Amino acid sequence: MTFLAETTDLLRRTPEVLRALLIGVPDSWTDTADVPENGWRPHDVVGHLITGELTDWVERTQRILEHGTSVPFDKFDRFAHAERDTDATLDELVEHFARLRAENLARLAELASEEDLDRRGLHPSLGEVTLRELLATWAVHDLDHTAQIFAGMAASHDVEVGPWKAYLGILLRRDDPAALAG
Amino acid sequence: MTFLAETTDLLRRTPEVLRALLIGVPDSWTDTADVPENGWRPHDVVGHLITGELTDWVERTQRILEHGTSVPFDKFDRFAHAERDTDATLDELVEHFARLRAENLARLAELASEEDLDRRGLHPSLGEVTLRELLATWAVHDLDHTAQIFAGMAASHDVEVGPWKAYLGILLRRDDPAALAG
Repeated sequence: MTFLAETTDLLRRTPEVLRALLIGVPDSWTDTADVPENGWRPHDVVGHLITGELTDWVERTQRILEHGTSVPFDKFDRFAHAERDTDATLDELVEHFARLRAENLARLAELASEEDLDRRGLHPSLGEVTLRELLATWAVHDLDHTAQIFAGMAASHDVEVGPWKAYLGILLRRDDPAALAG
Repeated sequence: MTFLAETTDLLRRTPEVLRALLIGVPDSWTDTADVPENGWRPHDVVGHLITGELTDWVERTQRILEHGTSVPFDKFDRFAHAERDTDATLDELVEHFARLRAENLARLAELASEEDLDRRGLHPSLGEVTLRELLATWAVHDLDHTAQIFAGMAASHDVEVGPWKAYLGILLRRDDPAALAG
């Protein structure tokens, strides 16, 4: 299987995973941030994923293909969601993300092919990067932030698990990132 | 919404999440453990979730309702999957888990009601626990281990993301559990 096919396969799954996990889930599971300080609730995380679809991944693909390393990428606004999504429900955000992702995968299929993967762009902080690295990062960024949603949902029941918390790494790491479950 | 209803809602989602994420996914995403030492690949994690369905959560519910604190729970065998599941594909494990989970939620609905939640059992290491704590732990245990699957899948592309690794906490934490993404 080609790199583009395997990467696209993963990217296509994320909206389905988020639907299965979040659409209609009771609020009691989604009202808590993953970590106590500067953490994100699932609502914030899905908003951040939407920002990526709106301004980042496919825009940067296009930048690489049109300008190579001569024009650096625009910076990714990690907090764009905060104001934009205040009035949206979590279900609405998940469906918005799913629509944008489908559109972006269609755009990607038109824009790029396997032969383009070694083409280079310029990241404003990281320097030269390849299209292959950009697309792998798009997919791993999905995995990273979806895992963050699981951490927030677990955190919402930090007290309810009682003494079992000692065995649940996903809760222990909220207080001590280096904690190992007992 | 009652505690049993919200907990069951979450427990019902896990098989759907695992199907969306794993059924038919290219092997290149699932051949890596979450951490370098004693880590688990997605295949191991789903096997561990199957063990919980076979021997733990509903058995312990029954133990509480029949024996209270007079007979402690059997110990949870955290490595039962290793030999049992050697020959099963990941897809087969996901579907096996989904069947067991559906059966166990049906059993739970027959066994327990909201009035039983404060009843107590005896954990062999943790001491007295309530049915409410057991059921919350069942759900958070799902979240913890599903997040571990995401960590393994991300780890499989640790190299492919190139310099972006500096921004991907899910990868940085493999080497240094206390790492914060840059």
